[in-house]
Amino acid sequence: MEMVSIADIRSAAVDIAGTVLRTPLMRSGWDAELWLKPESLQPVGSFKLRGATHAVARLTPEQRARGVLTHSSGNHGLALAYAARAAGVACTVVVPEGAPAVKVERIRALGPQVVLVPPPRRIPEAERIAEETGAVLVPPFDDLRIIAGQGTIGLEIIEDLPDVDAVLVPVGGGGLSSGIATAVKALRPSTAVIGVEPELAADARDSLAEGSVMVWGEELTYRTMADGLRLPPSDLTLSHLRKHLDGIITVAEEEIAAAMGRLVRDARLVVEPSAAVAVAARLFRRDELPAGPTVAVVTGGNVDSAVLASVLC
Amino acid sequence: MEMVSIADIRSAAVDIAGTVLRTPLMRSGWDAELWLKPESLQPVGSFKLRGATHAVARLTPEQRARGVLTHSSGNHGLALAYAARAAGVACTVVVPEGAPAVKVERIRALGPQVVLVPPPRRIPEAERIAEETGAVLVPPFDDLRIIAGQGTIGLEIIEDLPDVDAVLVPVGGGGLSSGIATAVKALRPSTAVIGVEPELAADARDSLAEGSVMVWGEELTYRTMADGLRLPPSDLTLSHLRKHLDGIITVAEEEIAAAMGRLVRDARLVVEPSAAVAVAARLFRRDELPAGPTVAVVTGGNVDSAVLASVLC
Repeated sequence: MEMVSIADIRSAAVDIAGTVLRTPLMRSGWDAELWLKPESLQPVGSFKLRGATHAVARLTPEQRARGVLTHSSGNHGLALAYAARAAGVACTVVVPEGAPAVKVERIRALGPQVVLVPPPRRIPEAERIAEETGAVLVPPFDDLRIIAGQGTIGLEIIEDLPDVDAVLVPVGGGGLSSGIATAVKALRPSTAVIGVEPELAADARDSLAEGSVMVWGEELTYRTMADGLRLPPSDLTLSHLRKHLDGIITVAEEEIAAAMGRLVRDARLVVEPSAAVAVAARLFRRDELPAGPTVAVVTGGNVDSAVLASVLC
Repeated sequence: MEMVSIADIRSAAVDIAGTVLRTPLMRSGWDAELWLKPESLQPVGSFKLRGATHAVARLTPEQRARGVLTHSSGNHGLALAYAARAAGVACTVVVPEGAPAVKVERIRALGPQVVLVPPPRRIPEAERIAEETGAVLVPPFDDLRIIAGQGTIGLEIIEDLPDVDAVLVPVGGGGLSSGIATAVKALRPSTAVIGVEPELAADARDSLAEGSVMVWGEELTYRTMADGLRLPPSDLTLSHLRKHLDGIITVAEEEIAAAMGRLVRDARLVVEPSAAVAVAARLFRRDELPAGPTVAVVTGGNVDSAVLASVLC
């Protein structure tokens, strides 16, 4: 299986520099050995912009002319719409009817063609459009270009904190964790890269233990508030995680909520639940982690006002 | 009157580099020509750390041995306590009885000596301690070292966005606006530096119009939710503003609240009301401002949960 290399990630860093924010490492106010990597500050509010921008940059001239396509109405959909607009490439986003109006409006504001379909038609319709128009389907994580793009976060962490002992990364489909682990292990093999999942959607943990992709059903994964971490890894991301990841920690729902509150109050970051799991691991699973300088990746800040308000009390 | 020079500000930038975060310029998601300078990301959550760190760095060895002192229980008190700890210098913070417990706890957590006194005793008690112990009183804005420290924001803005046409800066006591205007006008005289005040505490506007410090009473300035912008300028800061500032815009309370909501939802930044006035000016007073690339300084994120929750709806 073709894997992402550190050279791919270095090349991605060059490709995305004009569009993606080089986020700073912030010292946390409550833990002298904890730094935050606030990807919530990206335009469109999540790390997904890195992979999407890289995927768009890698299009051939023929592909550029045909445009890009996704069926994500979440952070990846937003990111691809932004990246495509920044590059002057046409974009189509297939959105399930019933998606929250605020999300659809955010995507529309970035100018792509938005195609509303009944939820079960989402993927077939995207495939039909790709077939018909030649638009390039850009998946959210199961893709070498996406993994390399997300991996640029690892480059920046090692550049800014060369003696980091542990990097804590939320794990959903595994694109982010695959990229970061690839970069960090290439640059500083002694740094532990540890994935963090909700207890209620620990499919990557199980997949690593089993050595092959273990899919939890939606009836299980939809219990977690960390809606960005419900998907299982793919064969591609699991291969990267098996090779590079040092372990996986799981956190409980109340720990995720507490970490969100901590980030809002003491780091002044608006975060979504999925973005708080790495900080939750450091707050509540510290005995399972290396003791030294630690970076928690704070992945995004697109959160419903009601959810945000609920952690302020 | 001795004034801060660009050389002072460049020197301050060197002094503060180890303690202060070099904040990025973030593109706003809603306005293609607007960038945000998120000082809310500083440790302790405000730009005040720049001036406080610089003031501590400038102590003589004798002064370092005697320590520093302030009577601010707000952002400046927090910043001085943090800067002193980072430099290994003793710090005393005189706090009025009745100050919000959460604020006092935040200061205590940084390790200074905290002296609680009845509110009218705050300044006399600080002066008494300074007299008795030789500790150096570090004022929040009426001070050349503080102005030079805050001015480093101006250096960074010009470095990151060399063709900026307008810089919008909240004006309270005027330390921040004096420093930024000094830096920006030295480096790029064609860039407009515009102060922003609440309509309900427009003492700097009146002082500029009058050519001398005009003090609005607390019965007036305490009407604004922007609690960091209630103080009038000093002779020192007004001199800087008269020399370097291009103008002052005022904004209404509902505009400040709307700008806070915009920053929370669309820039994923937790901000205090005072930090939102520059963005409010761009949102609601655009016809009074230059049209080109604009930076709004977002000064801090220490906000009561209840106030934050109120702008989420």
